[in-house]
Amino acid sequence: MDNTSSISINEGKPIRCKAAISRKAGEALVIEEIHVDPPQPYEVRIKILCTSLCHTDIVFSKLDTGPLTRYPRILGHESVGVVESVGEHVDGFKKGDVVLPVFHPQCEECRDCKSSKSNWCARFAEDYLSNTQRYGMSSRFKDSLGEDIHHFLFVSSFSEYTVVDISHLVKLSPDMPVDKAALLSCGVSTGVGAAWKVADVEEGSTVAVFGLGAVGLAVAEGARLRGAAKIIGVDLNSDKFEIGKKFGFTDFVNPTLCGEKKISEVIKEMTGGGVDYSFECVGLTSVLRDAFTSTRTGSGKTIMLGVDRPLAPINLVSGDLLRGRNVCGSLFGGLKPKLDIPILVDHYLKKELNLDSFITHELDFTEINKAFELLEQGKCLRCILWMDK
Amino acid sequence: MDNTSSISINEGKPIRCKAAISRKAGEALVIEEIHVDPPQPYEVRIKILCTSLCHTDIVFSKLDTGPLTRYPRILGHESVGVVESVGEHVDGFKKGDVVLPVFHPQCEECRDCKSSKSNWCARFAEDYLSNTQRYGMSSRFKDSLGEDIHHFLFVSSFSEYTVVDISHLVKLSPDMPVDKAALLSCGVSTGVGAAWKVADVEEGSTVAVFGLGAVGLAVAEGARLRGAAKIIGVDLNSDKFEIGKKFGFTDFVNPTLCGEKKISEVIKEMTGGGVDYSFECVGLTSVLRDAFTSTRTGSGKTIMLGVDRPLAPINLVSGDLLRGRNVCGSLFGGLKPKLDIPILVDHYLKKELNLDSFITHELDFTEINKAFELLEQGKCLRCILWMDK
Ligand SMILES: [Zn+2]
Ligand SMILES: [Zn+2]
Ligand SMILES: [Zn+2]
Ligand SMILES: [Zn+2]
Repeated sequence: MDNTSSISINEGKPIRCKAAISRKAGEALVIEEIHVDPPQPYEVRIKILCTSLCHTDIVFSKLDTGPLTRYPRILGHESVGVVESVGEHVDGFKKGDVVLPVFHPQCEECRDCKSSKSNWCARFAEDYLSNTQRYGMSSRFKDSLGEDIHHFLFVSSFSEYTVVDISHLVKLSPDMPVDKAALLSCGVSTGVGAAWKVADVEEGSTVAVFGLGAVGLAVAEGARLRGAAKIIGVDLNSDKFEIGKKFGFTDFVNPTLCGEKKISEVIKEMTGGGVDYSFECVGLTSVLRDAFTSTRTGSGKTIMLGVDRPLAPINLVSGDLLRGRNVCGSLFGGLKPKLDIPILVDHYLKKELNLDSFITHELDFTEINKAFELLEQGKCLRCILWMDK
Repeated sequence: MDNTSSISINEGKPIRCKAAISRKAGEALVIEEIHVDPPQPYEVRIKILCTSLCHTDIVFSKLDTGPLTRYPRILGHESVGVVESVGEHVDGFKKGDVVLPVFHPQCEECRDCKSSKSNWCARFAEDYLSNTQRYGMSSRFKDSLGEDIHHFLFVSSFSEYTVVDISHLVKLSPDMPVDKAALLSCGVSTGVGAAWKVADVEEGSTVAVFGLGAVGLAVAEGARLRGAAKIIGVDLNSDKFEIGKKFGFTDFVNPTLCGEKKISEVIKEMTGGGVDYSFECVGLTSVLRDAFTSTRTGSGKTIMLGVDRPLAPINLVSGDLLRGRNVCGSLFGGLKPKLDIPILVDHYLKKELNLDSFITHELDFTEINKAFELLEQGKCLRCILWMDK
């Protein structure tokens, strides 16, 4: 049999492979052998090439109650893979395609996918926070005892093979380095997209970014791409300002070093009345208030990117809004994955978008628990885990 | 002396005339004889032709503490007048011009006046909530004992003559009926502008308006002008739906008659997932929450027009924003008075904008306390008070 044939030897059959299983909240992942079923209609089975992890993986690896907490499961939602086989009714993807799975769907057919004002696909809106795929709660993963292992955020990239609905899949240019591409699956796209699509930052405008984690750095990079004149980084940890310089920041402020002055007063002085756009990337509604009051009266726009507890009250009062300022949130930076990720890839290939500096570590997939530690200790922006290194 | 001369016989001298004075919080206005000083540089003295009143006049006629509560004073900020004389450095206005004073300034020179994204004139931003004019806290009004009477919101139209800074003055087409024009000074412009400038309502879109007072009716009229396909009126008082039909509403819902269903559920059913634009015109942050949750996930925009207590917390939580919805406020409907009011006048003259139906009552100026009662009892949308009837 010819190995280079376009027919996978496993096509239509389960594949045995390794995966990192999250068996219990708060426990380290366990590398186990699993079975990955063939794709159902509108699904693609993918061989993962590399994956990274984002804070959402850490947060949910510890959560025991609420949505998205079915165990055992396979986490991971930043990755690139190659199509191994496709299910029925799959147009546009074939064996061998390099693809980027994305947790955020785009069916391309619903009213919202067709609107330029939304990136919230209506066909998935209702079950978005459950673990379901197009065909309900069923799973494509089984452990060695034949028990179901659950999916997570429609991707589950902490596995050598996974199955993804085509609404969650972007085809990549073969020119694009796969590790850099993997960054575009979540955090970096969320930040760049927030500056580009949600805020629509204009040339010459002023920007403040609260929180210099990966998402905040990506916001600055997006604002720089859009031609912002002043991009102010705000963080309690001045150590982060050095790395910030690589991502378009022009100024830095540490609120704990401002003496009697409020951070909003300092920013108003630096900008002659407040920034045009302010981004909350910490995930605290108290910081949202600082971000909001740092914007210009009458036109300032505040974008909430950080995710606080879902029921945390927005820390704003009626009088704040009256003065003509705007506050909004978004998911996935307002990007439509299939439409907008190829544009970001293009910016990278033209050397207009800095992705390389986000990759601070690389490890073998089997060292995944070490990658969790690095990210949790704040020692790492993104750690690429290679499946076959 | 020739009465038709272009030189006012009073030019440069104080004018004696009648005004309705608010001497004490909560007390009826008192018609008194006052002196109105000549205009200072950049000011115009105006003979008021007619004035109406808005809820803000009622609210502040009762307030004793906080900003804007200096007594005695002359309230009133919806009016049309004719220029009696002008101060130094006044270009663009001359004796005999018909003018609309507006509480909201436009200096035409600052960065915000020159930006298309803001209607919040930077030259006035700082002292906006005080009673000051360009030249500090001084007054142009004196009572018969020579004591100062304070201005209110830069207009003070409850007087036969008043003095207004040119930043607060719009020149009117002589074709425009003055009583209809007076409506454009505050509430009606705020509502129409919110649909037009703040929300930027699009053809074919869906709209919900919470609260069918004058501002809410004006929002519907603005949404109709912009071509909205469905305009849903929400009010606890079904009696208001009859008048609503004159202002572009296509549907009505009374939340108290929805049984077990929340108003947001009903609106989502009526619109296949939520309205594109939602307007809070009641002035309660609890209603803001209903308005917000009635909008479409991923793209819905909520505009807060009602004014709650300035420190009333915005009744939204972190998870609300994450779903890509937007909330904003504005003052004066996002309109730049000198630029946008002439456009609304034009819409009226072309019979595209319904202003006539807002005028439910007309009285002589001396009956002003009766007009307060009518508005307070909800019996009236707008009552025009004529100075010389
Ligand atoms: Zn869709
Ligand atoms: Zn993520
Ligand atoms: Zn200005
Ligand atoms: Zn008013």
